[in-house]
Amino acid sequence: MSDQKAQIGVVGLAVMGKNLALNIESRGFTVGVYNRSRSKTDAMMKDHSEKKLVPSYTVEDFVNSLETPRRILMMVKAGKPTDAVIDELLPLLDKHDVLIDGGNTNFHDTMDRNAKLDKSGINFIGMGVSGGELGALQGPSLMPGGQKEAYDLVAPILEQIAAKAKDGKPCVSYIGPNGAGHYVKMVHNGIEYGDEELIDESYNILRNVAGLSIDELADTFKEWNEGELDSYLVEITADILTRKDDLGDDKNLPIVDAILDRGANKGTGKWSSEDALAIGVPQSVITESVYARYISMLKDERVAASKVLAGPTEKVEVNKDTIVEQVRQALFFGKIMSYAQGFEQLRFASEEYDWNLQFGELAQIWREGCIIRAQFLQSITDAFEKDSNLTNLLLDDYFKDIAAKYQDSAREVVSLAIKAGVPVPSLSAAVTYYDSYRAAVLPANLLQAQRDYFGAHTYERVDRPGSFHYSWYEEQ
Amino acid sequence: MSDQKAQIGVVGLAVMGKNLALNIESRGFTVGVYNRSRSKTDAMMKDHSEKKLVPSYTVEDFVNSLETPRRILMMVKAGKPTDAVIDELLPLLDKHDVLIDGGNTNFHDTMDRNAKLDKSGINFIGMGVSGGELGALQGPSLMPGGQKEAYDLVAPILEQIAAKAKDGKPCVSYIGPNGAGHYVKMVHNGIEYGDEELIDESYNILRNVAGLSIDELADTFKEWNEGELDSYLVEITADILTRKDDLGDDKNLPIVDAILDRGANKGTGKWSSEDALAIGVPQSVITESVYARYISMLKDERVAASKVLAGPTEKVEVNKDTIVEQVRQALFFGKIMSYAQGFEQLRFASEEYDWNLQFGELAQIWREGCIIRAQFLQSITDAFEKDSNLTNLLLDDYFKDIAAKYQDSAREVVSLAIKAGVPVPSLSAAVTYYDSYRAAVLPANLLQAQRDYFGAHTYERVDRPGSFHYSWYEEQ
Repeated sequence: MSDQKAQIGVVGLAVMGKNLALNIESRGFTVGVYNRSRSKTDAMMKDHSEKKLVPSYTVEDFVNSLETPRRILMMVKAGKPTDAVIDELLPLLDKHDVLIDGGNTNFHDTMDRNAKLDKSGINFIGMGVSGGELGALQGPSLMPGGQKEAYDLVAPILEQIAAKAKDGKPCVSYIGPNGAGHYVKMVHNGIEYGDEELIDESYNILRNVAGLSIDELADTFKEWNEGELDSYLVEITADILTRKDDLGDDKNLPIVDAILDRGANKGTGKWSSEDALAIGVPQSVITESVYARYISMLKDERVAASKVLAGPTEKVEVNKDTIVEQVRQALFFGKIMSYAQGFEQLRFASEEYDWNLQFGELAQIWREGCIIRAQFLQSITDAFEKDSNLTNLLLDDYFKDIAAKYQDSAREVVSLAIKAGVPVPSLSAAVTYYDSYRAAVLPANLLQAQRDYFGAHTYERVDRPGSFHYSWYEEQ
Repeated sequence: MSDQKAQIGVVGLAVMGKNLALNIESRGFTVGVYNRSRSKTDAMMKDHSEKKLVPSYTVEDFVNSLETPRRILMMVKAGKPTDAVIDELLPLLDKHDVLIDGGNTNFHDTMDRNAKLDKSGINFIGMGVSGGELGALQGPSLMPGGQKEAYDLVAPILEQIAAKAKDGKPCVSYIGPNGAGHYVKMVHNGIEYGDEELIDESYNILRNVAGLSIDELADTFKEWNEGELDSYLVEITADILTRKDDLGDDKNLPIVDAILDRGANKGTGKWSSEDALAIGVPQSVITESVYARYISMLKDERVAASKVLAGPTEKVEVNKDTIVEQVRQALFFGKIMSYAQGFEQLRFASEEYDWNLQFGELAQIWREGCIIRAQFLQSITDAFEKDSNLTNLLLDDYFKDIAAKYQDSAREVVSLAIKAGVPVPSLSAAVTYYDSYRAAVLPANLLQAQRDYFGAHTYERVDRPGSFHYSWYEEQ
């Protein structure tokens, strides 16, 4: 072990941990590294022997290799493995040390761990990390939540390793207490699910309703990426659509046609919808994107059903001159609804969990480094800079005007797909959300009458405060 | 205290507990009754002094008033109040006694309590009770889950008090182990949310797109109730639409127009969607109905948004001659999709929680007594009788044929509403679910390419088993 103390330690040297450690080291810091099994540490030291890395092979040596107050970044699997590492470290730590969990942890667990460790005087940060392997190495988007004083202690490192937006600002900031960081990462992932589903539905309409070839599709997404839709996910979609199969006999087969249509998931999008349901905020676009993955997993059922369930009787007419631009507008419209819901969820969560989230900053730190990075995030940042109390993104002038301009296309495209029998769960949820949100009166008055009728649940009135019950069972 | 031992005891004499006790007594059983505060017991005994009720004023007397093995039905608030009653009773009970929780309890709590009490040799049944106050008194639908031997001990009573279907069968049967009963009740409530939302959207379209008067609407629902849509909820909707305001100055105002459009909820519909997300089953129609309630709660936001968010540019053309029948077909189509999802959720849950649910029996016991009672449930019962392993209701001939026949109307109505700017979240979710389910290929192949591109998550292929990763970052 080197005599020089490391400024930060990383536990867990799988690809994300290793790349974050290398990123930190590349900014001039000395990094202690430790992994439960020795082989990963050895491999890393062999590949990077010239770097300011301090390897340890016992947890005691690792803890002793760090400056105090210690800063320790855990990059291990969420759940029990994380608890196991915490339990190992805890007896060796001193008050004011900072433990950071950079895993894909559920925010409820982070809240529990933060409270529990706080009792021992240990600071605990739950940090969302987005950007995948490459982001970890070159500059991720970071969402740390926990004690503010703990954040201040690690901020100089985090700000250096994070991605930088066009205005030079690092894609990291203090999110809020306890579980706030992991919550925001969870909503980020939900939004990512929504973005992907909206893109995939748009692709499906263009390919299977409008009849675009795979090359036309690749060109379309490439072109879209040069305008308002400029984003990492649209960019890689354009690239994917140019790629050919690398394994099969037909070297001209588009790779997407070699890939099985079972959409997997690792849970964070689902968590986001679960919490939207729990705290009472409508989040339909993302939820439909989660369900779209679930239904895609039922491949055998779908193939069987496709043979017996009838499709539309009439064939739809498509105007090939206008459909591509209409789908582009529908996709952007859908994206706005999805983000409007996501930020409404963050607003509800901030209230529910007492986090005082700074919505403009969240949009800022998503501008680069993460999967949902996009030009669009700057417009959200701008909206919250104009009005930090903005209730819903749709009420900002920029978004309101785009919604007004693009809604007709969104309605047209969704109607077309529905008449063509092509599924558009998230695009249609986007339109119905818009129409629900701008409805001064919804048929929930009839609902309240029904609930009062069968369950005496009472209702409110339009003309006076209070709870009322109608004598439904008395003859009039 | 009477010398005669009671055959069953009821704890909690609020309206549901009182009515169930009276229902049981009316079938010839002697019922022990106990309430934490004496006043409810006194009031009940005063009103029903001639009945075979054995009142107790201490929990000890109550337990001693019962035959052994004891059968105790708890009708108290879900959550801590239920735990408090259990804790009070437990030391006084003997092995093989049966505790029944008839409250609106989350099935996770029921699973925990069943396991905990089982260790003390006490049988614990979590029982869903549907039908409201009147149902409790005259014949509810009952969904008991727990130890089978415990069910056998209470079955003679439950079968007597439950509603009877047209074929004379009681609306109760053994649902399955531990939390199965409360789970099935939760899905029942989710389905109820879906039914209500589908009816409310249909009403909204007919009123605000087709321009039907309130009297025409009342007549329409009355007529619908005489056909395929024959159901309690359609019946009360027709009645509600004939009712006038009982409080305001305008005695001709329809009561629905006096009621504020904020749709409340008590949580069980939400639980149903939360668990659908947790166990990976698509349940979009119900979830959209939950979100519809949430968005309805944002009344102030909606009113503000209604003033600034633009609606469709063009006015839609409605064919008044055909629209009513089209909406009827769309509503029935939507209902089929909602139940198809609900029963798919039950199938997933049966697997997930190891319950061996009998789907046909579930449809049977919902035929009468509960809020979703409907002629339609007989068709579901029939479908599962024909094939107890039916994967999805849509694959049954009856439902497949109706879906085929009504899909064009559903597509037409949803398109119309979307172009008119009237929100149809659940109706459109029904159509997109149908189209997703009958899609042999979904764009989840593109999704898997995206996930592999940014996160190296790997994908499956159409032509061979295994997990694959594409070299996205190598130039071709």
